[in-house]
Amino acid sequence: MLAEFDLIARYFDRSAGRALGVDVGIGDDGAVLNLATGNSLVVVTDAIVEGVHFPVYTPAHAVGYRALAVNLSDIAAMGANPRWASLALALPDADAEWVAGFAAGFFLLADAYDVELIGGDTVSGPLVATVTVHGEVAADMAVLRSNASEGDAIYVTGNPGDAVAGRLCEGDTDAEHYLAERFLYPTPRVHEGLSLNGIASAMIDISDGLHADLGHLLLASGLGAELRLDALPLSAELLETVGRDQAIEMALLGGDDYELCFTVPADQDAVFQALVSSWDCSVTHIGITVAAEGQRWQDDAQQLYAVPDSGFDHFVVAAHELPEDAE
Amino acid sequence: MLAEFDLIARYFDRSAGRALGVDVGIGDDGAVLNLATGNSLVVVTDAIVEGVHFPVYTPAHAVGYRALAVNLSDIAAMGANPRWASLALALPDADAEWVAGFAAGFFLLADAYDVELIGGDTVSGPLVATVTVHGEVAADMAVLRSNASEGDAIYVTGNPGDAVAGRLCEGDTDAEHYLAERFLYPTPRVHEGLSLNGIASAMIDISDGLHADLGHLLLASGLGAELRLDALPLSAELLETVGRDQAIEMALLGGDDYELCFTVPADQDAVFQALVSSWDCSVTHIGITVAAEGQRWQDDAQQLYAVPDSGFDHFVVAAHELPEDAE
Repeated sequence: MLAEFDLIARYFDRSAGRALGVDVGIGDDGAVLNLATGNSLVVVTDAIVEGVHFPVYTPAHAVGYRALAVNLSDIAAMGANPRWASLALALPDADAEWVAGFAAGFFLLADAYDVELIGGDTVSGPLVATVTVHGEVAADMAVLRSNASEGDAIYVTGNPGDAVAGRLCEGDTDAEHYLAERFLYPTPRVHEGLSLNGIASAMIDISDGLHADLGHLLLASGLGAELRLDALPLSAELLETVGRDQAIEMALLGGDDYELCFTVPADQDAVFQALVSSWDCSVTHIGITVAAEGQRWQDDAQQLYAVPDSGFDHFVVAAHELPEDAE
Repeated sequence: MLAEFDLIARYFDRSAGRALGVDVGIGDDGAVLNLATGNSLVVVTDAIVEGVHFPVYTPAHAVGYRALAVNLSDIAAMGANPRWASLALALPDADAEWVAGFAAGFFLLADAYDVELIGGDTVSGPLVATVTVHGEVAADMAVLRSNASEGDAIYVTGNPGDAVAGRLCEGDTDAEHYLAERFLYPTPRVHEGLSLNGIASAMIDISDGLHADLGHLLLASGLGAELRLDALPLSAELLETVGRDQAIEMALLGGDDYELCFTVPADQDAVFQALVSSWDCSVTHIGITVAAEGQRWQDDAQQLYAVPDSGFDHFVVAAHELPEDAE
């Protein structure tokens, strides 16, 4: 059993290699940070709870990765550059092996995007990891949800639906294994979100499902959307595993994707097309914003698709999906 | 049962009365904040867990107050001005009455110090409240733990020991009731910490007990201390409730006080004495820093007092103090 200070010092303190902008990191009552002149600070916070946001048997490495990934996804959706993270980790016991795995997963992602851990708190308790990420953005340049205009094109990155399928499947086939990895190790679209700054009119990340999160964007912008069901970028692995009908439902309602959904005005289209040609991830045009409220998804036969039971709610999911071996 | 978005909107979103420096508050993927020119950002994070940091029967109002108070105390110990808070609240169920009480306690303190809630996350899970507070401080002016010099006077605010006594007592007498209030509603020394900027050479807040936290300050500064046991500011209520011997142990080892311990160089003494005459809380000179490492506490008879079993550890406390009606 390790004491709190040992845990922080052993696995999380990297103050020797302190990054630019960090005057004081781990080891004092707080961290002291300096923004570049003319920049605003973007702050996001997300907590993940064992048995709710990830199953109880999830490897520590994936939990550490995920705790940071869900926050980087929010920073990306603001078109900001992630810089500094703080971590509050509640742990049932001070298991050094578990903490080492968590730290390895956390830093795998932190290092990939040059994010420095600047402080935190390790406490005894049920497994909850809360991360706050601080990003920078040029003043007045954050990409909000509320700024889309009528006639903007609607895009989504990656393959929505894979994550929820990966969470629910057994991992028996190659396809299921792929989906499980998409759930355990979602790729926050950090570079993509940052590069959309000045191009996208509005943006959101898909944590609660494409239908719900696009709904938040449209509501904030006072718009509706015409969307094409056949344009949904369903992965081959998802189609193979659950079939087309279920794949569509998972893509629209599943959640946990951490892809970006955003709008691009017509006058930015040329710049946007040039930009995405250099991206590592796919991006798909799924529809267009319109003045009339609501989402209208049309299927191949030009019929209106009735989105089943919209909306994702953590509390409902908690009650329904809590694994039986959780308390 | 309320959905997550309802909970945030109903109890935590006050975006109508947005404070200075907040371009985007609750309602987007992240908040966008602007520091005053020439200022650095101070970031602190603390999590509190039911059954570990507060008993399971603690009123929601006190939990909300405490979640913010422990973080404001850290900001105060940096000599910074608290500005913005984000909150991640894991809740076993979406009990509107409980959340309303929590929010009332949280905002009681937030309003007292003009701190704005700029974002957060409400998730299903065991009761854990994680708060991150962002403060401002003039560049290079944060008060660190590591900057004390030999011969600096050591001070402590308020009455250490009251909080742990209040946590353990039954609340049957007026004195016990007073102590219980000190535990439930600790006063973060925000104004005092801020006013010590430029005067105190080093500072820390007492969350783990005076002996342990002064120890952190001394270690960071590469110093030791000569201290006077009879100078310890033991409250009349603490002495009445537990007697002098136990009061001393609680003041040195108890934790949860959220008082400030700091050092003042001789050449700042006149300014300091003038300053503290205007403070609402007491402040006590308890000793002096010396070159030789370690803390030497002398009692009335000039005998060295052996501090019993030093150090406070959340994990140990969790195992020993977890109420029996907790899981």
